[in-house]
Amino acid sequence: MAIDKGVSSSFDGMVSQRLMEVGIVLPQPPDPVGSYVAAREEAGWVYLSGQFPLLDGSPLFKGAVGGNLTIEDGRDAARLAALNVLAQLRRALGTFDRLAGLARVEGHVACAPGFTDVPMVLDAASALFRTVLGDRGEHARTAFCHAALPLDMPVELVVVAKSD
Amino acid sequence: MAIDKGVSSSFDGMVSQRLMEVGIVLPQPPDPVGSYVAAREEAGWVYLSGQFPLLDGSPLFKGAVGGNLTIEDGRDAARLAALNVLAQLRRALGTFDRLAGLARVEGHVACAPGFTDVPMVLDAASALFRTVLGDRGEHARTAFCHAALPLDMPVELVVVAKSD
Amino acid sequence: MAIDKGVSSSFDGMVSQRLMEVGIVLPQPPDPVGSYVAAREEAGWVYLSGQFPLLDGSPLFKGAVGGNLTIEDGRDAARLAALNVLAQLRRALGTFDRLAGLARVEGHVACAPGFTDVPMVLDAASALFRTVLGDRGEHARTAFCHAALPLDMPVELVVVAKSD
Repeated sequence: MAIDKGVSSSFDGMVSQRLMEVGIVLPQPPDPVGSYVAAREEAGWVYLSGQFPLLDGSPLFKGAVGGNLTIEDGRDAARLAALNVLAQLRRALGTFDRLAGLARVEGHVACAPGFTDVPMVLDAASALFRTVLGDRGEHARTAFCHAALPLDMPVELVVVAKSD
Repeated sequence: MAIDKGVSSSFDGMVSQRLMEVGIVLPQPPDPVGSYVAAREEAGWVYLSGQFPLLDGSPLFKGAVGGNLTIEDGRDAARLAALNVLAQLRRALGTFDRLAGLARVEGHVACAPGFTDVPMVLDAASALFRTVLGDRGEHARTAFCHAALPLDMPVELVVVAKSD
Repeated sequence: MAIDKGVSSSFDGMVSQRLMEVGIVLPQPPDPVGSYVAAREEAGWVYLSGQFPLLDGSPLFKGAVGGNLTIEDGRDAARLAALNVLAQLRRALGTFDRLAGLARVEGHVACAPGFTDVPMVLDAASALFRTVLGDRGEHARTAFCHAALPLDMPVELVVVAKSD
């Protein structure tokens, strides 16, 4: 590692290293599922479109937590959506070096009637952001239950980030 | 048209021309439906209040897509809400010349149980923004289903825009 | 009051005075209910996490408006959530002097089936912001009904504010 100082001393290099350490390969950032762009950067702020638990263009999970999906399924779905957030940010910014910090993370969860422990599901995404991005991954979070989410997906994450 | 160069060479003039070409007259921007303001501009950003398919103060559509409303009804409602977004932006900014770009469009759709094809509904709004505003109408979108929306309206759009 | 000119001529002092006049003591800002921070300030913008009708860490209201809760309950819950917004802002900024203005207020209300008069509920929060913060409390509002909110709470407020 000491050899690769040039890479690992940049924030982007540190992020790559942390991803490797926890055995994560960033997925290809998913294409939008409609007539919009995946990310829009304006005056130092990046607005991401809603990110879902998609892998290679297909949903890995469908349905609602507390119904056909367990809490652990919901947490896995939240983590995959969080990886797509990271992949979109990297593509939008070119490098994580330009990421000043996450600002807001909205977490939307499809919940079967009676299930409202949304924080437990979303903590999986929040923890991932902090593990991979450190201080720059700190965020204010807002959480919501929905009877259903678009295309019957169980989790949708919406991120507003500050760029340099 | 060549005569009216002063107008049509400004972005505001171009927007007017595109609206005319597609046969659209911007509605009066609706009044807020509560104790708040329709738009708030701070430090080069415009936050719009939620916009609904209202015309002359009355909802043109009520209910849920996939229930009493068809997808085509939903798309019409999304287009009308999008026109109200444009009307609010013009009133808030005075002129479209000051619109640097849309950043984020949140699309909320009231969906009957089992209907989750929200992107199909919201694409009608997204397409309108791109037709009328060109590149400045590109946006990151987030989509949601709801069992119901305030005052039983089928679509609510929330826009954050960058001003100059 | 004339004696205390130094305090009451600052905006922070004016806010304290208005709170006293209407008999309000700001609560302790609630801790996050998950792995995130209560507020994040970036480049002159403050993103607050979702605020609930919590007092001393416990929900004062649970359930849905139009169901087990009346509209007046909902308005009380909205006011308490609004007080938590104010408390979070003061803690995040150190003083209200640094608050340039609210920009966006999202109001989310848990609604029993058939109840959609969300503006009536949220107006209680909006009115409080204007009473206490004056012009700086003006905001664009977006309103939503939900079948349920996280941890079965009836109201969630999300605020984006501009700081100086």
